[in-house]
Amino acid sequence: MSTEISPLAPKSYPEMPVIEGVRFATAAAGIKYKGRTDVLLVLMDEGTEVAGVFTRSLCPSAPVDWCRANLPSGKARALLVNSGNANAFTGKKGKAAVELSADIVSKAAGCAQGEVYLASTGVIGEPLPAEKFSGVVDGLVADAVAGSWLDSAKAIMTTDTYPKVSTRTVDLGGVPVTLNGIAKGAGMIAPDMATMLSFLFTDAPIAAPVLQELISGAVGGSFNAITVDSDTSTSDTALLFATGKAAERGAVRVTEASDPRLEPFRQALGEVMLDLAHQIVRDGEGARKFVEVRVEGASSDASAKRIALSIANSPLVKTAIAGEDANWGRVVMAVGKAGEPADRDRLAIWFGDVRVAVNGERDPDYSEAAASAVMEREHIVIRVEIGLGEGSATVWTCDLTKAYVEINGDYRS
Amino acid sequence: MSTEISPLAPKSYPEMPVIEGVRFATAAAGIKYKGRTDVLLVLMDEGTEVAGVFTRSLCPSAPVDWCRANLPSGKARALLVNSGNANAFTGKKGKAAVELSADIVSKAAGCAQGEVYLASTGVIGEPLPAEKFSGVVDGLVADAVAGSWLDSAKAIMTTDTYPKVSTRTVDLGGVPVTLNGIAKGAGMIAPDMATMLSFLFTDAPIAAPVLQELISGAVGGSFNAITVDSDTSTSDTALLFATGKAAERGAVRVTEASDPRLEPFRQALGEVMLDLAHQIVRDGEGARKFVEVRVEGASSDASAKRIALSIANSPLVKTAIAGEDANWGRVVMAVGKAGEPADRDRLAIWFGDVRVAVNGERDPDYSEAAASAVMEREHIVIRVEIGLGEGSATVWTCDLTKAYVEINGDYRS
Repeated sequence: MSTEISPLAPKSYPEMPVIEGVRFATAAAGIKYKGRTDVLLVLMDEGTEVAGVFTRSLCPSAPVDWCRANLPSGKARALLVNSGNANAFTGKKGKAAVELSADIVSKAAGCAQGEVYLASTGVIGEPLPAEKFSGVVDGLVADAVAGSWLDSAKAIMTTDTYPKVSTRTVDLGGVPVTLNGIAKGAGMIAPDMATMLSFLFTDAPIAAPVLQELISGAVGGSFNAITVDSDTSTSDTALLFATGKAAERGAVRVTEASDPRLEPFRQALGEVMLDLAHQIVRDGEGARKFVEVRVEGASSDASAKRIALSIANSPLVKTAIAGEDANWGRVVMAVGKAGEPADRDRLAIWFGDVRVAVNGERDPDYSEAAASAVMEREHIVIRVEIGLGEGSATVWTCDLTKAYVEINGDYRS
Repeated sequence: MSTEISPLAPKSYPEMPVIEGVRFATAAAGIKYKGRTDVLLVLMDEGTEVAGVFTRSLCPSAPVDWCRANLPSGKARALLVNSGNANAFTGKKGKAAVELSADIVSKAAGCAQGEVYLASTGVIGEPLPAEKFSGVVDGLVADAVAGSWLDSAKAIMTTDTYPKVSTRTVDLGGVPVTLNGIAKGAGMIAPDMATMLSFLFTDAPIAAPVLQELISGAVGGSFNAITVDSDTSTSDTALLFATGKAAERGAVRVTEASDPRLEPFRQALGEVMLDLAHQIVRDGEGARKFVEVRVEGASSDASAKRIALSIANSPLVKTAIAGEDANWGRVVMAVGKAGEPADRDRLAIWFGDVRVAVNGERDPDYSEAAASAVMEREHIVIRVEIGLGEGSATVWTCDLTKAYVEINGDYRS
């Protein structure tokens, strides 16, 4: 964990309302880090439903396997998250560690093992000493309280320099319901999720299959539209828990994804997930610039997204941004290597509001001074018009700095 | 151009034999650089045949368009290469610049424009001042001599820290023939070629269609099996010229790719291209380690290559190598994100001769000291056994260091 907070960090945190039916506690189990919390336990009241999305890595971590196996029941009572060790590529020991973890939590929380969700983040390939949880979980269950969202977000950090939280309160059929989310992630961040964990909680009474439709629908434009370094984690997990407690205040239980009363909630979920995704990029390892890449006029939305990611993942584009260099030639290169339909002589490129290239060459009105002024900004928008169709996509990334290399050159040792 | 030579540079250069029918000259045209040569003219005797492979970028440079258009004739008399400006994404001005260049060269050399090949490397998006060639090309034609391979390789360098040359002499149906090659490239290097230019010359009498079959067959295991930063240039060009002059010494003209007399030449071509490809990786921007990634036991050779490239392009793997950290968890991550068939619990991973992981977890006999000793080497071999089939591939890359970020953060300005 770096000691210096990212210069792109949010200037303030929102007030996080209580979510009825959710309690938290954190502890220092000494998994890897010293002198900080590294375990988060979340307890949820009976009746809580759950949905989730996971890494598409073909070598997922043991906790990802565990959650995937439990999810079809749609029921959750507890979530245990640790930082410092990802319990990934740990073979039979990894499977044994998740089984022991779930056993410890289910006994302490008084629920079934199938209602326990697990997530781990940190070093890959080291056996997770799950027995350390047994020393702290009873205390966590006793101490769990309704508040402390920031403390929870802090306990799951690895190379993050600040905790990530977001909240919205919206109307659900005439009753206000709240959605809170926390997340962690700073490196190994790429579409198809990242070493990214996010846990979302709501008091809205929404059935698990509907929750699944909601989170699956929102992930493409949020967590799967960010990239720090193109590397995809074995551990990516986003879970959405709904306690249903708002039903006690008159909220109607939603059992159909097409229910029109769901729209404000659907929008709020998208906003919270995008907010958390942006916070992850803003904490990108070594990041000094927040970069938005918008591609328009591609042959399809999917094509636009692949082009946008080709730009956002290009080390040469990212180092140019770090150097505040309006090097649009590298943007052309990244469009060209995406393998998607593009016509060099129809391309137009903007940095911020400065059009630097048009019709396949430098804009006749191009001003180096104006472009350079844009590059000095903290939030840089690169816009590319492909000129072939109606497809568009936006993705977010950060610059590639010497600090990224420094952080990742001596992370494990 | 960096002033410090890569620590991975070859310790010596081979003696480069004369290729009959090929003459060179270099000049300082002041395209971008000051105080160094930046133009190479190669003149080839009548009867020279040519073949080539180019970037797969969909936004290729104007010189790539020019060469592609000329290649079907299979005839070449002159090659003009400049460094400092890629003449890429320069629209109509770019097309006018290649036409002017070819006009200048064809008049000076006394050949058809269709026999003139052009290559440019350097900044993208700046109009190429081709009129500067008119001041130097007459002199180049007058000065052209048979030797000076190293000088030629130097004139086409951009961020390269050393010139790249390679040579083989082999038997062709009882007559010795020679193959010499030069190359440049240090960044924007990725499969599907790179900002990589390579020019290969032989006195062997080989027909253009056969040359094409030879170079197309050799590129997959050489120039398309290296990556510095996953970025693909708009300008990648590899041309193979055959003057046929060895026919005067009794060599038989080869007109069929299946001709068994061609085997030694085919092998030599593969060796020269691989040698040049390795020299490019060893000059990777900021490189301090030469990394060989071997994937075995994949479901197919193509699958193995995609997995190998996923490892070789991973910023987290490359920064770990820079930090001399035997972080095999990141290798697992890169296997997982490749999207290719893999079974976590069958994976085995070696750094050098140290098996660090087996059966999906850390090797029981793993020794941190032994792995660390491997990581201190200059040439690091990462071997991954997938355990599913017979597919294998080897690719080469370098580490990702702070110097890469430094070089690319202020290249253009």
